[in-house]
Amino acid sequence: MNKLKVTGVLACIVLLVSHLSHASSILSGDDGYRLWLKYDYISHLEQRASYSQQLSHWHVAGNSSTDKVIRQELTYAFSSMLGNQAVDSQQGDASLLVANLAELPEALRNNATDGKEFKTDEDYLIYGFSENGQKKVLITGKTDVATLYGTYHLLRLVQTRQSIVSLNIFSSPKISVRVLNHWDNLDRHVERGYAGQSIWDWHKLPELIYQRYHDYARANASVGINGTVLNNVNADPLILTPQYLEKVKALAEVFRSYGMKVYLSVKFSSPQLIGGLETSDPTKPEVLAWWKQKSKEIYAEIPDFGGFLVKANSEGQPGPGDFGRTHAQGANMLAEALAPHGGIVMWRAFVYANEKNEERSKQAYSEFKPLDGKFLPNVLVQVKNGPIDFQPREPISPLFGATPNTPLMMEFQITQEYLGFSTHNVYLGPMYKEVLSTDTYAKGKGSTVAKVVDGSLFQNNISGMAGVSNIGSDRNWTGNVLLQSNWYAFGRLAWDHELSSEEIAQEWTQMTLTQNTQAVDKIVNLLMSSRETTVNYMTPLGLHHIMDEGHHYGPGPWIKDLGREDWTSVYYHKADEQGIGFDRSPSGVNAVAQYHEPLRSRLADPSTTPEEFLLWFHHLPWDYSIKSSGRSLWNELVHRYYQGASEVEEMAKQWSELQPWIDPLLFAQQTMVFNIHQQEAKWWRDACVSYFQSFAKRPLPDGLTPPAHPLDYYQNMKFPNAPGRGD
Amino acid sequence: MNKLKVTGVLACIVLLVSHLSHASSILSGDDGYRLWLKYDYISHLEQRASYSQQLSHWHVAGNSSTDKVIRQELTYAFSSMLGNQAVDSQQGDASLLVANLAELPEALRNNATDGKEFKTDEDYLIYGFSENGQKKVLITGKTDVATLYGTYHLLRLVQTRQSIVSLNIFSSPKISVRVLNHWDNLDRHVERGYAGQSIWDWHKLPELIYQRYHDYARANASVGINGTVLNNVNADPLILTPQYLEKVKALAEVFRSYGMKVYLSVKFSSPQLIGGLETSDPTKPEVLAWWKQKSKEIYAEIPDFGGFLVKANSEGQPGPGDFGRTHAQGANMLAEALAPHGGIVMWRAFVYANEKNEERSKQAYSEFKPLDGKFLPNVLVQVKNGPIDFQPREPISPLFGATPNTPLMMEFQITQEYLGFSTHNVYLGPMYKEVLSTDTYAKGKGSTVAKVVDGSLFQNNISGMAGVSNIGSDRNWTGNVLLQSNWYAFGRLAWDHELSSEEIAQEWTQMTLTQNTQAVDKIVNLLMSSRETTVNYMTPLGLHHIMDEGHHYGPGPWIKDLGREDWTSVYYHKADEQGIGFDRSPSGVNAVAQYHEPLRSRLADPSTTPEEFLLWFHHLPWDYSIKSSGRSLWNELVHRYYQGASEVEEMAKQWSELQPWIDPLLFAQQTMVFNIHQQEAKWWRDACVSYFQSFAKRPLPDGLTPPAHPLDYYQNMKFPNAPGRGD
Repeated sequence: MNKLKVTGVLACIVLLVSHLSHASSILSGDDGYRLWLKYDYISHLEQRASYSQQLSHWHVAGNSSTDKVIRQELTYAFSSMLGNQAVDSQQGDASLLVANLAELPEALRNNATDGKEFKTDEDYLIYGFSENGQKKVLITGKTDVATLYGTYHLLRLVQTRQSIVSLNIFSSPKISVRVLNHWDNLDRHVERGYAGQSIWDWHKLPELIYQRYHDYARANASVGINGTVLNNVNADPLILTPQYLEKVKALAEVFRSYGMKVYLSVKFSSPQLIGGLETSDPTKPEVLAWWKQKSKEIYAEIPDFGGFLVKANSEGQPGPGDFGRTHAQGANMLAEALAPHGGIVMWRAFVYANEKNEERSKQAYSEFKPLDGKFLPNVLVQVKNGPIDFQPREPISPLFGATPNTPLMMEFQITQEYLGFSTHNVYLGPMYKEVLSTDTYAKGKGSTVAKVVDGSLFQNNISGMAGVSNIGSDRNWTGNVLLQSNWYAFGRLAWDHELSSEEIAQEWTQMTLTQNTQAVDKIVNLLMSSRETTVNYMTPLGLHHIMDEGHHYGPGPWIKDLGREDWTSVYYHKADEQGIGFDRSPSGVNAVAQYHEPLRSRLADPSTTPEEFLLWFHHLPWDYSIKSSGRSLWNELVHRYYQGASEVEEMAKQWSELQPWIDPLLFAQQTMVFNIHQQEAKWWRDACVSYFQSFAKRPLPDGLTPPAHPLDYYQNMKFPNAPGRGD
Repeated sequence: MNKLKVTGVLACIVLLVSHLSHASSILSGDDGYRLWLKYDYISHLEQRASYSQQLSHWHVAGNSSTDKVIRQELTYAFSSMLGNQAVDSQQGDASLLVANLAELPEALRNNATDGKEFKTDEDYLIYGFSENGQKKVLITGKTDVATLYGTYHLLRLVQTRQSIVSLNIFSSPKISVRVLNHWDNLDRHVERGYAGQSIWDWHKLPELIYQRYHDYARANASVGINGTVLNNVNADPLILTPQYLEKVKALAEVFRSYGMKVYLSVKFSSPQLIGGLETSDPTKPEVLAWWKQKSKEIYAEIPDFGGFLVKANSEGQPGPGDFGRTHAQGANMLAEALAPHGGIVMWRAFVYANEKNEERSKQAYSEFKPLDGKFLPNVLVQVKNGPIDFQPREPISPLFGATPNTPLMMEFQITQEYLGFSTHNVYLGPMYKEVLSTDTYAKGKGSTVAKVVDGSLFQNNISGMAGVSNIGSDRNWTGNVLLQSNWYAFGRLAWDHELSSEEIAQEWTQMTLTQNTQAVDKIVNLLMSSRETTVNYMTPLGLHHIMDEGHHYGPGPWIKDLGREDWTSVYYHKADEQGIGFDRSPSGVNAVAQYHEPLRSRLADPSTTPEEFLLWFHHLPWDYSIKSSGRSLWNELVHRYYQGASEVEEMAKQWSELQPWIDPLLFAQQTMVFNIHQQEAKWWRDACVSYFQSFAKRPLPDGLTPPAHPLDYYQNMKFPNAPGRGD
């Protein structure tokens, strides 16, 4: 039915009708399922003609499963965008040729690759040349997967209406391991998931392979994500039983063609829980033997299995510490088991223990810094961007730059655990860039986090970046179409952290929402300011961890008296009648000592601390004068809360003006999301201002509407069924 | 973009392409979302022309929200099926007129309604007549909702390619309350749900109204379902708090236009749990006052609110028994609170208590029979079809026919809790019909269950049928496209229980899968035999409740030693070296005494007990001779298990031959489902035969392949993450 050979009016009517009959409902429209691979028709006649000329005859050499994927994608994309039957031609006739280096005629290979060094199997080249007077484009690389990446790059150029004439694009990923972390439980609950349940239907695997699994892999490959950790870091040991490994294998077989490896989160005590051993002590031979046997078992079925992700001795998870061993001993045991098969260990540095009498933000550094150089070469230590836990804004983790002999993997959170869940429209590109471009000064000026993570600062052999997925079973994948941009931005930056968050936003907008220039500009502006807006109405001036307890939904600055002090809000903001903020300077817990100079001294002094981190590092009096504005701390705090909430109103207004250029169904759905966003930004503002006012005992600056309700109204709000609960 | 005014080749290409770009993936195809409202293009030229002539000009009188729904549905359906722009004409020009009785010209009203008695607001008439030499069709009824029902009937005629010439169809629902029961928790987990999570996104309500809510209502209205209980009978008391009631209201406002009322399951102890009272004793004035106030609060926001569904004093739920009161006292208190607003109480008779020294199948009757006549007029007692719990086959509950003064509402299960979950292809139409057509003999021969339920046997004022929903967030709604037929069949039978399950299967197949006659026949045959097949490989000859514990997934005839004896399997099959079966005859627990004569005597004697209920009512020796086959009981049991499993293989084979006539994506997905079904039918067979053989100690009949594994292999299989767990 989708064969496009028909002509004439009758056939036209048939197709027209089958289009309608495919509509999902009366109000048929864009439901967001297609993500940025929407491939909408190019309505501009000349543009279409120009692309058509170059792309109407193409050829994919080879017949690997990846080649088939490329062929399928080109057929689909060109048919959709260009409106004609895409032709898979003979190689000689094709104006677009996709072939790996080995498949190329020698002369073409020599010409095309002249001066380029293909360092990795993923590097790709898009090369324009002339043959017999015909302009042609070649996409090549060492492997078929590299040509798949190149293919998506070319498609992106067309989707963003860029020229494809005389291209000479050579691209090499700056980071080698680019993975999503799914915090998905085996019962399909997603911890910190706000887009429905897990897309993995474990119960029906391995037999039932949804088309969605393929579409997931397509989306990831299109942005260069080359791996996925299928299950929650709070891991169920059952994942390593044969019953589940055959399900994992089925997914791995889908993802392989798209260049994606499968990884698993494992529970450190698995030898005891499912192996029948009496210990999981990493120094015991039977424990190592168990992991070796388990690895062998896995690789026999999944030869390209990626490796393990481990959360150990953190928030109740078992680990080597249970047996008096270090994180390095634990990680190395697993690394030894995986090494013969080429697997890696991603060992999380997110550790903090109640017993330790040390401030939480300092513990990961204290624990891991002494272990520098003690890890086997196939271990990556995975570090969250900040020292606490995925707050709207955090300073960088002091571990970045602190371990010259240990490769550190970045862990970003894409899902919005502390960022309002999926109804807050926050584009995280600027946050990721802020972190990556921060200077650690580890080897003097210019020692950015990005250079630590990509391995260039300390010449590491492997490098990695993980994003905690915001993907779920919701039809639009992320619970909110705008938040697809965060999945997209994560992947693009993991491949190339030098891209600007703005250009990524622009690409994504054109590919996903609209081609109208004016509308694209509006949307990009809206996206670019959205994260700062969120910081303002949630946690301005360095405030952090003041969300409601457990689920982290909504404001909860009043939270106290939990099982651990460092799970409460009052511990972090320390508001009292004198002032507010956490003294992490030398006069306090001296967390600044964990940073390199001159960052250390700069953060030690409130007058040189960037205002956005003021209350992270200092407890300051309510009348402290804010340099940039001249306002008192109290007035500035209130100002930012009100500023943030009114910026969300402005965002919603901007969105409402986009109606002419956005698909009607998508527009209507997103408008409802903006309604929630506006309400909740005001809720955050009012709850926090009311609460902090109870300490500051100062009036609101003139002209501001006071909170709608008394403080206890906000304190009494309860959300026992908020989604994404932790275990 | 969906406006169909375009002509010419260029426009054709545009639409053709936008069709493709709407495809959900490379393998675009039917993902099952559209259910039976698929409205595929009528490819047969003459058929299309004939329908077009009659339907191309239509008019919907009035402008209520229901009228708008009708207009939208006609536009969408006719555009899709007929391939031309549907025209909403002036009344005079229209060959199809949709108008309620009050909107009709008097002469037409008189002619059309001559001899018809519109008993309910839902009765509709489809009436063919001639005017000025033009053949016309009128759809009318007392209300707009009635005309909506009539509209769906007309559309069904077109979808099933029936004549719409000279129609004179008058239809009145046989049952007044036709509702789905969603066992959906407020955290979106669906108890006994096998199609993803709840479609109600409570967290984002009331602001976010998905198009899916509308499509849900469309589907229900199209089969005559006029209400829905939104939440689990194991009810969370929070549903009655203002926070949730505003969400309920938002859904009610969507459903209202489609003729659907919203109902809620309520927890009997709500006055204590959320009302701050110290008791929920139904005889206390403050308790009644609380419920009255709560009802007032609800009706102020939802004027057409349907009422409450209550599971009380059953499986740990609170109830009037906690205060020494009867079910009637509990139900009547709620009924009194709802009565001023027109609401009803649906009070479940599914009660059994550990303390009671009475066999489980007998308890509901013992509890409720003495209460007959004690309920207020707006109470319906909701009775499961059988006396245990939604087994693949059960005899009817003896309550049907036992309460001449109390209307009994039928509770069917659509979701397949005990029927293999959503990967077993079981069409339940024949099961529903088997129950409804069973004779209770309550007032002599012909006193069928259907007549009890529709109120005609005892002249009840209200009547009801509930179906426990199989709907979830899966794209195809029911986790398996074929199982949409059960939602469909439930609705059709609730409206008219005299329809045959075969004609329902045929309608559904044509509307959902294919128009090819040969293919339709194959599918209908496959559907019609599927339930008997399932009984054979799961619970032949009256066996029951031998599923694995808790989740009820897979075989577990060996289950014993649970918290309650009547939760185990061994309690129900009582296999030993002598024989097998539960003696419910007068020599045993004498459950047969609860039925009317002559059923009672027939069931008391194995020689007159229908073979399908043999082991339900009798414990028989392994060598007992089965009348129909002459086989020994052991051989017959084994024969049926093998028969069932081989029938599933045959079903899968039949399905595989349908490829030419089924959408490719849908075909591929369903083929995978059949693979699971085949495997699991063999698993059931092998596990049960192995287990029962350990008692019977007899060989398999000649020629049968022995089970693939020893018994302990099956006994050791564990499924802690099986979906749909109970609370």
